[in-house]
Amino acid sequence: MGEKPLSDLDRKRQISLRKLPVVEDLNSIKESFNRHLHYSLVKDRNVATKRDYFNSLAHTVKDHLVGKWIRSQQSYYEKDPKRVYYLSLEYYMGRALTNTMINLGIQGECDEAMYQLGLDMEELEGVEEDAGLGNGGLGRLAACFLDSLATLGYPAYGYGIRYEYGIFKQSIDGNGSQVELPDDWLKFGNPWEKARPEYMIPVEFYGRVESDASGKNHRWVDTSLIFATPYDQPIPGYGNNTCNTMRLWAAKSPKGFDLSYFNDGDYIKAVLDRNLAENISRVLYPNDNFFEGKELRLKQQYFMVSATLTDIVRRYKAPKFGSKVPVRMTFDDFPDKVAIQLNDTHPSLAIPELMRVFLDKEKLSWDKAWDICVKTFSYTNHTVLPEALERWPVNMLEYILPRHLQIIYEINSIFLKKVEKLWPGDLDRMRRMSLVEEGPEKRINMSHLCIVGSHTTNGVAALHSELLKTTVFKDFYEMFPEKFQNKTNGVTPRRWLLLCNPGLSDLICEKIGDDWITDLSKLKKLERYVKDRNFRHSFMRKKQENKIRLAAFIKEEFGVDVNVNSIFDVQVKRIHEYKRQLMNCLHVIVMYNRLKADPNMDFVPRTIMIGGKAAPGYYMAKLIIKLFNNIAKVINNDPIIGDKLKLVFLENYRVSLAEKVIPAADLSEQISLAGTEASGTGNMKFMVLLDKYATI
Amino acid sequence: MGEKPLSDLDRKRQISLRKLPVVEDLNSIKESFNRHLHYSLVKDRNVATKRDYFNSLAHTVKDHLVGKWIRSQQSYYEKDPKRVYYLSLEYYMGRALTNTMINLGIQGECDEAMYQLGLDMEELEGVEEDAGLGNGGLGRLAACFLDSLATLGYPAYGYGIRYEYGIFKQSIDGNGSQVELPDDWLKFGNPWEKARPEYMIPVEFYGRVESDASGKNHRWVDTSLIFATPYDQPIPGYGNNTCNTMRLWAAKSPKGFDLSYFNDGDYIKAVLDRNLAENISRVLYPNDNFFEGKELRLKQQYFMVSATLTDIVRRYKAPKFGSKVPVRMTFDDFPDKVAIQLNDTHPSLAIPELMRVFLDKEKLSWDKAWDICVKTFSYTNHTVLPEALERWPVNMLEYILPRHLQIIYEINSIFLKKVEKLWPGDLDRMRRMSLVEEGPEKRINMSHLCIVGSHTTNGVAALHSELLKTTVFKDFYEMFPEKFQNKTNGVTPRRWLLLCNPGLSDLICEKIGDDWITDLSKLKKLERYVKDRNFRHSFMRKKQENKIRLAAFIKEEFGVDVNVNSIFDVQVKRIHEYKRQLMNCLHVIVMYNRLKADPNMDFVPRTIMIGGKAAPGYYMAKLIIKLFNNIAKVINNDPIIGDKLKLVFLENYRVSLAEKVIPAADLSEQISLAGTEASGTGNMKFMVLLDKYATI
Repeated sequence: MGEKPLSDLDRKRQISLRKLPVVEDLNSIKESFNRHLHYSLVKDRNVATKRDYFNSLAHTVKDHLVGKWIRSQQSYYEKDPKRVYYLSLEYYMGRALTNTMINLGIQGECDEAMYQLGLDMEELEGVEEDAGLGNGGLGRLAACFLDSLATLGYPAYGYGIRYEYGIFKQSIDGNGSQVELPDDWLKFGNPWEKARPEYMIPVEFYGRVESDASGKNHRWVDTSLIFATPYDQPIPGYGNNTCNTMRLWAAKSPKGFDLSYFNDGDYIKAVLDRNLAENISRVLYPNDNFFEGKELRLKQQYFMVSATLTDIVRRYKAPKFGSKVPVRMTFDDFPDKVAIQLNDTHPSLAIPELMRVFLDKEKLSWDKAWDICVKTFSYTNHTVLPEALERWPVNMLEYILPRHLQIIYEINSIFLKKVEKLWPGDLDRMRRMSLVEEGPEKRINMSHLCIVGSHTTNGVAALHSELLKTTVFKDFYEMFPEKFQNKTNGVTPRRWLLLCNPGLSDLICEKIGDDWITDLSKLKKLERYVKDRNFRHSFMRKKQENKIRLAAFIKEEFGVDVNVNSIFDVQVKRIHEYKRQLMNCLHVIVMYNRLKADPNMDFVPRTIMIGGKAAPGYYMAKLIIKLFNNIAKVINNDPIIGDKLKLVFLENYRVSLAEKVIPAADLSEQISLAGTEASGTGNMKFMVLLDKYATI
Repeated sequence: MGEKPLSDLDRKRQISLRKLPVVEDLNSIKESFNRHLHYSLVKDRNVATKRDYFNSLAHTVKDHLVGKWIRSQQSYYEKDPKRVYYLSLEYYMGRALTNTMINLGIQGECDEAMYQLGLDMEELEGVEEDAGLGNGGLGRLAACFLDSLATLGYPAYGYGIRYEYGIFKQSIDGNGSQVELPDDWLKFGNPWEKARPEYMIPVEFYGRVESDASGKNHRWVDTSLIFATPYDQPIPGYGNNTCNTMRLWAAKSPKGFDLSYFNDGDYIKAVLDRNLAENISRVLYPNDNFFEGKELRLKQQYFMVSATLTDIVRRYKAPKFGSKVPVRMTFDDFPDKVAIQLNDTHPSLAIPELMRVFLDKEKLSWDKAWDICVKTFSYTNHTVLPEALERWPVNMLEYILPRHLQIIYEINSIFLKKVEKLWPGDLDRMRRMSLVEEGPEKRINMSHLCIVGSHTTNGVAALHSELLKTTVFKDFYEMFPEKFQNKTNGVTPRRWLLLCNPGLSDLICEKIGDDWITDLSKLKKLERYVKDRNFRHSFMRKKQENKIRLAAFIKEEFGVDVNVNSIFDVQVKRIHEYKRQLMNCLHVIVMYNRLKADPNMDFVPRTIMIGGKAAPGYYMAKLIIKLFNNIAKVINNDPIIGDKLKLVFLENYRVSLAEKVIPAADLSEQISLAGTEASGTGNMKFMVLLDKYATI
């Protein structure tokens, strides 16, 4: 083993942050790794593949989590604190291996163990499929929040859907156009998840409402059933003993699904049709900031929300670990024990669903139920784009969720009475604020429902939150000024600095210690080094190393030679007209024309990279991708331009690619998966500042 | 723990066969059990369910297998012996836990470990879902053969389909009619299987054949692809170091499945449609001894056969463990290294498929290819019932497998020339023997294909094998007398005596030792005890214990009180007109009428049990079930009859129920899942003899 030349990996292994491996842990990791290869994967080293080694390592790392996971959950049941429930239709998690090792503090040991076993850690890390259960910023925000909540020790849960197919894989064809391929990310299994079929929860659809003579008691009857099976994934905090749970639901037909077919006699068809019902959790809708009012999408939303609330209410009632016996008999403490955050309006049916549970099942009065709901829910708005706002057709709701539509009408009626009282006779205001939009097709405005049914509404940047108050939700701000807040999007510094930029992380730690990892404001301590020549030199060297690494990746993946001494000018995010990749293209053309006109002009070499997916049905966005790729073809093959200007389309941009790109970017409008859009704001501002000083 | 009264389990634990647990093993089992509960199931004992305990135990037991499994496969690669491939569309395996513990010789230790942990072994055993991937005898025969092959140390493989839904669950409604429920046996996972997505194999369908000018070179082009993912299950031998593999294939869409939909722009539909393609391995056709010529069934057959042959040819070419490099360059040794047994005609497409591989891929000459095929294949016929014989419409084959149809035509043409040579001018004989049946719809007779393409054809009982030669296959017998054989169906004495009848097994071992477990002919040694009063008494006591146990089960499951001193008269098997359950019903009515006419007549009390499923589309069979249940309702509620005559329909008869019923039966036409039909023949005859003596 000693004969090997000093590789990247060797160098990596010597860096300070990962510390020296503890021999004891090292041996236990090797032992556990070998045990899993033998017993869990049933392979010996003659036939084991890279994926087998990855899985052995993942199982080994997961074993280190289990104790914390069980104990964290036990302690939540013992202490019975207020729990935070994050509800999101998207979790853009990316890979888990390295993040888990870092958060558990066993990265050094694992590196060393793999090295001693003759395996290449970076290669193993590369085997893991991204968990691409998100489109962009909204989904990545959810993922970052889970990491931060666990690191801060909050008793938090992420609830969502276990899509069998995440965001499609983008490939670029010979013409430079985007082609979508299914993201069969579970094909080789997911070592991090634990299926919990024993905790399956029934979810109802369709049917009709039966009301008694009083008009107060309603029963939702003749419904169709589908089961929600939980899949749990551990969310370890950084350097602490907390391990939270992300619970994703998968759809499962009940035993006797659609007996009519059985009666028809076509047994085979009846069994095959079970599968159609399970389509609910099959695939993530690939739209970012765009509302596509499809029935299947509505079912996804309700499916997630209903199963989750059943789980939340059960946990509220029976907070004793391992017991199903309800202890709490009233819901008076509900808002003190339960906080539910709605990530955009996608889970907004949680509001009428919780009302339904309180009214129809728990027999609470309307006022009591509504009071608890409003105190329980908070709503995050992500955009003011009108095409992104969810407005479900009343017809569709009536068909699929008749009882919920009834409840929404009732919420609206009571709400409009209050508006009327405050602004008597202002019919136009009432029309604007109504949850029900009249028109050729009646629709429910889900953002209005969220604002009315929550105690807090926040935007995700200072400017955005201001716009909410002054434009789209102006009327609501006038009525409920106290509800409106701002929560600027942030990123977890574990993944987006410590993990993906170990060189820079080491440099920072050398200077100011490592408390910035859990408290980013500590980066301020770097201020004193901003004019330190040595520090700036080291900083630049780290950046250059990252650029060289990215260039090697680009060469290998896309076959393009990039000039590592050029400016890396990066725009990575979903392709959207409003995100103005087209402007970037025009800028490139301008530069190209100038260079062609005067090849000897003074010009700092520049590599322009664009990465991002376009929604499959978004014609204009796909055309922009094609345009960029065709400009690239011209410019990259122009001998007059040579090394000065290079264009790279970063095919299949995703979390794991962001981890490679972001540390190597010199210039970036906002270095972002949208979840990382905050890189130019808040605490991360400082890093940009550093960049600026260092590059001067 | 000592305070507990002596339970059934305690008594069971003291029996001789299971031996005294070795303390060392016992501790390692407890340790491994606790480790799996914690790490694999992520549970503590506060929240663990019975199923968690079952899974922990199953994982523990499987861990004991892994070493043998890997070493067995390694040794096959090292020694490169002739391998036996059993191809079957059905494997009626039942439960695996107890059988595995017995075959590994760790049942005593596991019993003791569970006892010390305060768990009830029988309860845990009851948690396991039956692997019901079969209809009746044909499927159970396959399962019994796998056990015997491993016990005899043969390098054998079972190949089949991993149906997501096995044979339906039978429930009986209020009118006494059968209702079919889907058998979602994988819902809670399968601890025994190991998915091997890394060994996926492409299978082609549809398309068309391109031939060159010579008419000798053919290419099957424009095909649709589906992948076959192997799931491996260990098959341990009894008391030896052999552990073989049962490899079942699951259908998986390829990455870019049906791109047309992507081009259509309906991305969601395209992803959902992947699932439709995966319907191939979704569900077992629930017909026993009946041919239902559905397209999906044909696809299942070809899917299994094609993936399996790719695997077999790969293993032939590259017999070095862990290497994919082909070593053997010719197929001369193929029949010396490969034996393929076809379980009925269901896998008969293996014959044209192997021809296709040899001709189109390996470029062998027809004569060479055919010679190897015939030397490689053997065919088991299971029935002479005309409605059970597979005759695939030529149209369907042409559409789905055009190249195979071409090859079948060529096989037939060459074959008929030989017939013509032997019986010149006997056109009627040629018509009868042709693989192609003319008529309003042209069909291929798959049994003719099997006889012609195999070196051996066997029936499954002496009488049946005689009938083959003298009736359905008379013409073929005259042409190939040397091909026809008999192989009477047998059962594995491990499951059907040792496992399900431990009391009797102990008694036998006490008298003649335990070598009968692997050599049933040794039971002859019991002959000397046939008139031994003590032995007969003990024998009767064991039977009585079994009857008491079954009676308790019947009471709990079906709510019927049965008289344990009555004759247990049992008919368990698929419901079929030809199996004459109707005659049984008539016999019951006769007895009932006689008793009604003379309630004081001399009558030995009798409990008549019928168990078995009817194919969902088999009207008459379902009517027979209803008849029996309605007769039961009358008789069981007639106070005049009282305890003398009782009828029990054994709802949802399956392997695990057979294990309870068979040891308790006094009378049974043939005690059978059909795989156990041999209980009245061959070696098992002796047990019947014993029964007779003992009951006199």
